[in-house]
Amino acid sequence: MENAIPTIADLKAAHERIAHYVHRTPILTSRRLDELTGAQLFFKCENFQHTGAFKFRGALNAVLSLDDSSAKRGVATHSSGNHGAALACAAGLRGIPAHVVVPRGAVASKVAAIEGFGGTVHWCEPNQAAREKGLAELVESTGAEPIPPYNDARIIAGQGTAALEFLDQRDNLDLLVTPLGGGGLISGSAIAAGESPSIDVFGVEPDGAADTCASLEAGRIIDEFHPDTIADGLRAKVGPLTFEIIRQRVARVMTVDDAAIIAAMRQIWRIMKIVVEPSSATVLAAVFEHRDAFRDRKVGLIISGGNVDLDHLPW
Amino acid sequence: MENAIPTIADLKAAHERIAHYVHRTPILTSRRLDELTGAQLFFKCENFQHTGAFKFRGALNAVLSLDDSSAKRGVATHSSGNHGAALACAAGLRGIPAHVVVPRGAVASKVAAIEGFGGTVHWCEPNQAAREKGLAELVESTGAEPIPPYNDARIIAGQGTAALEFLDQRDNLDLLVTPLGGGGLISGSAIAAGESPSIDVFGVEPDGAADTCASLEAGRIIDEFHPDTIADGLRAKVGPLTFEIIRQRVARVMTVDDAAIIAAMRQIWRIMKIVVEPSSATVLAAVFEHRDAFRDRKVGLIISGGNVDLDHLPW
Repeated sequence: MENAIPTIADLKAAHERIAHYVHRTPILTSRRLDELTGAQLFFKCENFQHTGAFKFRGALNAVLSLDDSSAKRGVATHSSGNHGAALACAAGLRGIPAHVVVPRGAVASKVAAIEGFGGTVHWCEPNQAAREKGLAELVESTGAEPIPPYNDARIIAGQGTAALEFLDQRDNLDLLVTPLGGGGLISGSAIAAGESPSIDVFGVEPDGAADTCASLEAGRIIDEFHPDTIADGLRAKVGPLTFEIIRQRVARVMTVDDAAIIAAMRQIWRIMKIVVEPSSATVLAAVFEHRDAFRDRKVGLIISGGNVDLDHLPW
Repeated sequence: MENAIPTIADLKAAHERIAHYVHRTPILTSRRLDELTGAQLFFKCENFQHTGAFKFRGALNAVLSLDDSSAKRGVATHSSGNHGAALACAAGLRGIPAHVVVPRGAVASKVAAIEGFGGTVHWCEPNQAAREKGLAELVESTGAEPIPPYNDARIIAGQGTAALEFLDQRDNLDLLVTPLGGGGLISGSAIAAGESPSIDVFGVEPDGAADTCASLEAGRIIDEFHPDTIADGLRAKVGPLTFEIIRQRVARVMTVDDAAIIAAMRQIWRIMKIVVEPSSATVLAAVFEHRDAFRDRKVGLIISGGNVDLDHLPW
């Protein structure tokens, strides 16, 4: 597959490729949250996915798409978070090596996850140039296939399988809402929803990482981007491919501030009794902060992951 | 129903009575926890139940069992926790008043839940005598029906419906393990399992509230009991009816210390991405602490509730 916009057929092929290994995650509802928001909410719980995030879908699709001769040299990426762990887990399933360039200062529990899934960690300085240089050197020396975190047709097709399943599990949604970081999840979701023209797809960015909003306004990807948000999964910058898909197919991108994200995260933990990471809570925060857009509608929300650092719990 | 040991027919009648209102809660599994414990674990998630705990089942069965003339005078109990909220919620569904005697010093969020479900809170001094006196006066002045938290056939039959569902959802369990406080949940579970003679039922008590263990050893309910454990849902003392059922039908009562409870709670949050209260984590703690009893067996664990105070989260 070239790095062109994936089609719905690509998503269905991805789903067939990975379905045996991924959880068909459940849809949860909450009468209380429906009362509080005035909408009818359906939560697709990718926090229950292997590796604790939807990222496993795209990484596994990419790994399983490789031909045997490429695969045996392994895969490589740079990541400080869920993509690295997802890639290590996917590579482990295929029995091939995974190399992950990790910037110094990355969260210890996420580095431990990469290693726990059998990936090899290669440290680098914590900046974009060092990450890219580290990855290029690694690819050069090992022959491993580079698997980017989101700006990649294989990844987008894999991430889109969450929405494919969702629309199969609930066929009456009016809206599909996902968090928006680099844009892999929302791009795949928008393609999945393409067969249901009555469904609008919305993305949600933190105020402190609203590069896609700014880029949509500017009509091109903005260069200036210094993310500052608690939603660590959404600090990536939209890519050329994901930006193009978002521009064509996403009805609206909303922003929410960190206080709203934290409040929504606590409500999900307290009312729904599930552990979600801040990035995932953006979608519920948007329903509270932009009520009129959701009132009385059937709203599908993708809960992207549940990997939070629990070392600081009071117990 | 008199306060005799409920039969399996009583449980089935209770289930029919409440099924329309309770969640048929899902069973979750975790490959990772299976690897870590060497057992095959199935978690019945009553933390997803209305009011966040299995307690709603018993309270609702009791409330719906009342005839109209008793019901209209309302229901009353004393509680500092989940039973009070469950009773208030159940009474609200029937449209009748609920009075809850609450000891001063009770956790604010739990008192708020009682009031949130429309119950009336009556404060008393924080000791057993004041709680019982407060309840007696309330029953005298209002004519409300007293609904005890566990030592009551209607409550036991209602709590047993969680295990009834569980055995219907997974018909190949070797063991059923529940937390043990006052004994309502385990008594109902043991009755539910009675039709499947190949299933053993185990209970788990915190070291700091191991009155049932001590009572079983003594052959009678011990009087000395000063609970001291993080598992706030298990600080109650076993009652005459529940003790009799446990003595007859529970294969084994195990104990775990608070450190093991906290460690197991963190593993459930981190690996399974669900919010559980310390009482619920006792069952997984027991699987870790008493490995040989569970190895290679299909073990059903009842996750009793998910009501924890989240005010102290680091975010």
